[in-house]
Amino acid sequence: MTPGGPAPVPRAGAGGPVLAVVGATGAAGAVMLEILSQHADIWGEIRLVASARSAGRRLAVRGEECEVLALREEVFDGVDIALFDVPEEVAARWVPVAAAKGVVCVDNSGAFRRDPEVPLVVPEVNADAVRTRPRGIVASPNCATLSMVVALGALHEAFVLRELSLSSYQAASGLGRAGLSALREQLAAVVADPDLGTRSGDVRRAVGGAGPFPAPLALNVVPWAGTPEADGWSSEELTVREQTRRVLGLPELPVAVTCVRVPVLTAHSLAVHARFEREVTVARAHEVLAGAPGVVLVDSPADGEFPTPADAVGTDPAWVGRVRRSLDDASALEFFVCGDNLRKGAALNAVQIAELVAGERTAP
Amino acid sequence: MTPGGPAPVPRAGAGGPVLAVVGATGAAGAVMLEILSQHADIWGEIRLVASARSAGRRLAVRGEECEVLALREEVFDGVDIALFDVPEEVAARWVPVAAAKGVVCVDNSGAFRRDPEVPLVVPEVNADAVRTRPRGIVASPNCATLSMVVALGALHEAFVLRELSLSSYQAASGLGRAGLSALREQLAAVVADPDLGTRSGDVRRAVGGAGPFPAPLALNVVPWAGTPEADGWSSEELTVREQTRRVLGLPELPVAVTCVRVPVLTAHSLAVHARFEREVTVARAHEVLAGAPGVVLVDSPADGEFPTPADAVGTDPAWVGRVRRSLDDASALEFFVCGDNLRKGAALNAVQIAELVAGERTAP
Repeated sequence: MTPGGPAPVPRAGAGGPVLAVVGATGAAGAVMLEILSQHADIWGEIRLVASARSAGRRLAVRGEECEVLALREEVFDGVDIALFDVPEEVAARWVPVAAAKGVVCVDNSGAFRRDPEVPLVVPEVNADAVRTRPRGIVASPNCATLSMVVALGALHEAFVLRELSLSSYQAASGLGRAGLSALREQLAAVVADPDLGTRSGDVRRAVGGAGPFPAPLALNVVPWAGTPEADGWSSEELTVREQTRRVLGLPELPVAVTCVRVPVLTAHSLAVHARFEREVTVARAHEVLAGAPGVVLVDSPADGEFPTPADAVGTDPAWVGRVRRSLDDASALEFFVCGDNLRKGAALNAVQIAELVAGERTAP
Repeated sequence: MTPGGPAPVPRAGAGGPVLAVVGATGAAGAVMLEILSQHADIWGEIRLVASARSAGRRLAVRGEECEVLALREEVFDGVDIALFDVPEEVAARWVPVAAAKGVVCVDNSGAFRRDPEVPLVVPEVNADAVRTRPRGIVASPNCATLSMVVALGALHEAFVLRELSLSSYQAASGLGRAGLSALREQLAAVVADPDLGTRSGDVRRAVGGAGPFPAPLALNVVPWAGTPEADGWSSEELTVREQTRRVLGLPELPVAVTCVRVPVLTAHSLAVHARFEREVTVARAHEVLAGAPGVVLVDSPADGEFPTPADAVGTDPAWVGRVRRSLDDASALEFFVCGDNLRKGAALNAVQIAELVAGERTAP
């Protein structure tokens, strides 16, 4: 990495592909810039883009300050690849604009995840899918799906997945900066409340409004994420189900999901019950997970070693532990997985996809 | 209820059975006294017992103050039924002492739950089992099992249960007063920490020690409860599995469990995936749950109505909601259940068992 300098001079990587980061000033955008500064520098120019409101701000990437440009059509001139981390409606409008200019667009929103002509890619699991992108768009999965599917992909390759039952423990930052600040405010309120006991409604009274959550999150768990869908399901649950099937290439996989928000700032966790075609052993599952890219195995509970969101936050891999073989079925495993929903769950996976696409240019 | 008076005068219920509450000064003991004061007064004397350390304290029950007696053999003279809420090793020693004196003992600890000669009873589900107690002992199930099994019992009767997959969201008070105060201290520490960000280890640094938990609980979830058992299982997970089977009378039921502690003071929650022999519909499941004793149905997520521990705490029933039929299996249901682990999960269930036993005396 070169040290920071005042002028936006051409980079060591000049001649490399030009990357635009759209949504550079958001929560996941900030993490993207951090990751781009840490990874091998393959990019020529990196262009930062955000809403007109944020234009003119200067942000550091690769050790140098860059001015944030306002999102408009011309900003994509000369761009090879664009990372989008913007609200769904903004992506729905602007991704096709960039794609029409020949820019390969990597989108982190839900706008294109269900489009059969848009591949949904997790590089550790289905890297090849990135090559078939008739619309010039590649989607990155929802944050609740991501860490889990990296571990599942490795286990599926070894044992052949047949059925899934999932319960999530999702962090406040799944709702962005608004989720983070609401949880911090609610925690401050309950800590400051001298009358907070363990009576029904105590927490509701102490925190006042629930913020962006459908119920208070401090000292609580909220079994709801997303918007209402048919038959009692939440959009988040259907999303996790559908995206897990797509990324694993198992369109008929039975997937039962309950999505629950917990009072954690960042890093989602999932408890997974997975039934396979082949018999499993914990030893073989450990071997598979220990050798899987993007996975770190943390599984010695007697020594206090298991994955927790407080440890996984701020790190890249999926932390996997509590691996057990079902006591009733020699082909089923239980495990617990944690991953940073802003890194692998959003920014990192998108950057990895962009790196895959960039790699095509130099591949034979 | 009679108003409080200074002297331990004979009660309106004199002539009723004599009840001893052993562990009256503990977290669940305090809730027992509250419940005994609220329920129909069927008891003659209520005798409060605790360790020698707490003897001599005066506690209110049924609106009058009683002196706490030190636990020793003579304290059981003339007692008909004794409720024990004491640590497992204390129960293992003293329950047989009381039982040898002809006292029917209701034990809340794990000391006798695996004894085939000790029935494990949840009155809403298997009240009849209380009658067969060759050792004079009845056990009350573990708090993580209790609320869930009340709802499951009703659904089993309607649809015939075939398989379970469970993930828990367990409160700090599962570890008693130590758990409660540790979580409060940890929350105060993270709220007061000006440097608390979302980096790995931030929470560990802010809270210092983890207290009685195997990892910090504030702003975290901890996928571990209990002690290590073979093959990676926790004692809590095996307990939930075994007790669910016993209470439902389904010794071969496949049960997959992951137990996770969450930063909630009191009230456990579980996400349940249940497969039945018969086809299910959400409408019929709602009907069954709405009519089930000890269950309150809270299931209108579009209106923000679903069970949360912050609402269930301090109340008696199991709160059930998020009822969905599996999208892949017309015989499977998902639901979410919350219950106060100190009330139904401990004190209330034990009092209900004692009331069942007392009722035998007047039954034909």
